[in-house]
Amino acid sequence: MNKEKEFINIINKLLNKDLNKDIVVGIGDDAAILSGNKQNKKVICSDSIVEDLHFKFDYFSFKNIGWKSIAINSSDLAAMGAVPEYFTVSIGVPSHISNKNFEQLILGMKECCDSHGGFIVGGDIVKSEKLFISITAVGSLFQRGFLTRSSAKPGDKIAVTGNLGDSLGGLKLLSNNNTIENKLTLSHLKPSPRIFESEKLIEAGVKCCMDISDGLNNDLLNLSESSKVSLEINVEEIPVSKELMDLFPTNYIDIAINGGEDYELLFTFDDSKIKLPFNHFVIGRVLEKNAKNIFYKNKGKIFEPRIDSWSHFE
Amino acid sequence: MNKEKEFINIINKLLNKDLNKDIVVGIGDDAAILSGNKQNKKVICSDSIVEDLHFKFDYFSFKNIGWKSIAINSSDLAAMGAVPEYFTVSIGVPSHISNKNFEQLILGMKECCDSHGGFIVGGDIVKSEKLFISITAVGSLFQRGFLTRSSAKPGDKIAVTGNLGDSLGGLKLLSNNNTIENKLTLSHLKPSPRIFESEKLIEAGVKCCMDISDGLNNDLLNLSESSKVSLEINVEEIPVSKELMDLFPTNYIDIAINGGEDYELLFTFDDSKIKLPFNHFVIGRVLEKNAKNIFYKNKGKIFEPRIDSWSHFE
Repeated sequence: MNKEKEFINIINKLLNKDLNKDIVVGIGDDAAILSGNKQNKKVICSDSIVEDLHFKFDYFSFKNIGWKSIAINSSDLAAMGAVPEYFTVSIGVPSHISNKNFEQLILGMKECCDSHGGFIVGGDIVKSEKLFISITAVGSLFQRGFLTRSSAKPGDKIAVTGNLGDSLGGLKLLSNNNTIENKLTLSHLKPSPRIFESEKLIEAGVKCCMDISDGLNNDLLNLSESSKVSLEINVEEIPVSKELMDLFPTNYIDIAINGGEDYELLFTFDDSKIKLPFNHFVIGRVLEKNAKNIFYKNKGKIFEPRIDSWSHFE
Repeated sequence: MNKEKEFINIINKLLNKDLNKDIVVGIGDDAAILSGNKQNKKVICSDSIVEDLHFKFDYFSFKNIGWKSIAINSSDLAAMGAVPEYFTVSIGVPSHISNKNFEQLILGMKECCDSHGGFIVGGDIVKSEKLFISITAVGSLFQRGFLTRSSAKPGDKIAVTGNLGDSLGGLKLLSNNNTIENKLTLSHLKPSPRIFESEKLIEAGVKCCMDISDGLNNDLLNLSESSKVSLEINVEEIPVSKELMDLFPTNYIDIAINGGEDYELLFTFDDSKIKLPFNHFVIGRVLEKNAKNIFYKNKGKIFEPRIDSWSHFE
């Protein structure tokens, strides 16, 4: 078990038993849902990005850092079926940051808010050796229903909203000083939260969803643990961009399965009852309860992908 | 102008014009107030603490770091007339932190929540070279009214809820390896947010309040700038503990005026109309509009305190 999971277990052990009936969904999902007003439940989540861990100044503009810091939080809200309303922003600022840099950072945040919803209403600034940005997002559910990672049912189809692996492909290009702007690098530098798709999932009656931030394989594991089910994935059905295939012809499948920071939605649904009115990609199905395994197949045959132990934390 | 204020001005320039009518109080006060449900307005704020800037492991236990990280956010809510409801916690964890350390950190947070209200509902953990904790607190107003730092009126009395300078006195002891637990060190290590007093201020009809986190002089400047008034302070009326006077006999007044992290409430009120049902200390009065000066007197004579340019940011 990795250190991050050990720490999360400590938090769960110490805090989750406290959570009162006002909290519909607590620690452990993409965001918490607070009951509050019955007609307008609030959803709250936090996500941080830290210099040299989540981004390097070599290839990240201040504007893109600002954009991404908001986008990853909006993505967590989308994963719950919520639309962004408010953000608070805590920034740890190293001494080398100029006013111009800082302005670009805030402008990037503002552009993401203008594009995908929400306002920055407060925050704080502290000195720090490395730049860090901790954001809390508060959203409202689109409807009374919401999405969780714990509600997958055996027989459900497993689907995603878009191509996987582009962000990791982009990061590999950027790390090799290939900073040409293309589909892959843009996917890493300026991801778009799937707010529109989130609303459509809720309207269609989907219950189980999360965003893919830790890579498909890791997030399949998270979903299978939360829902206590096994999952079967058909790797030939995983959507992969032409650009990723062209630039990484020998390992694009590994990149799509392991790549983090895709920020697509991963969801399950009963396709005999639910029709989805937007482009999506069925990549497998939910198997029996209580097993918590991931089985990969390629055109019907057992497939063993190369699994990286990718983590922001290790 | 210091760097922090320059950055805040950039944020105000870029973001404040966006704030829509749903936001009652925006960037620049201790917290933002969101209109939302008319009967139950939400208040939201963020505050971070960073290793070596706000605390050192030499004299801070993990439990006290956890306590203080929550307490300073609850204090911001108290400054607005709100009670803590929910917290999200983002933690940047260095590799040397053990599971036991982490458990103590979370226990300290939990103890502060148990003592002063609110639940931790979510957050995230990332790796970081230095420990940082960024917290966002969401609270509810005690009543429909609220407190701001911009509502001081000429003629108001200026008052505080308790002794000033103990926390800086405590920090001076701790920095000199004097880690004996006493009133001063405890005041620095484990401050108590003034939730009770906040409710009484609201009930009594007080409108202008902030918490003293940057030191009395700095926060008087913040209040005078926000309210566009001058302030007159009688230094002999500033409440100072016997312990501070005994341990710092030559400079306790300077410590009380400059000392940061008191987390007492600083408020103004019309004492001909408002009677306060709790212990408080009148330290001066609000002068004319639009001047934004602080005048210190000692027993009626002009007094010039030694002003430190204390800041967490510089």
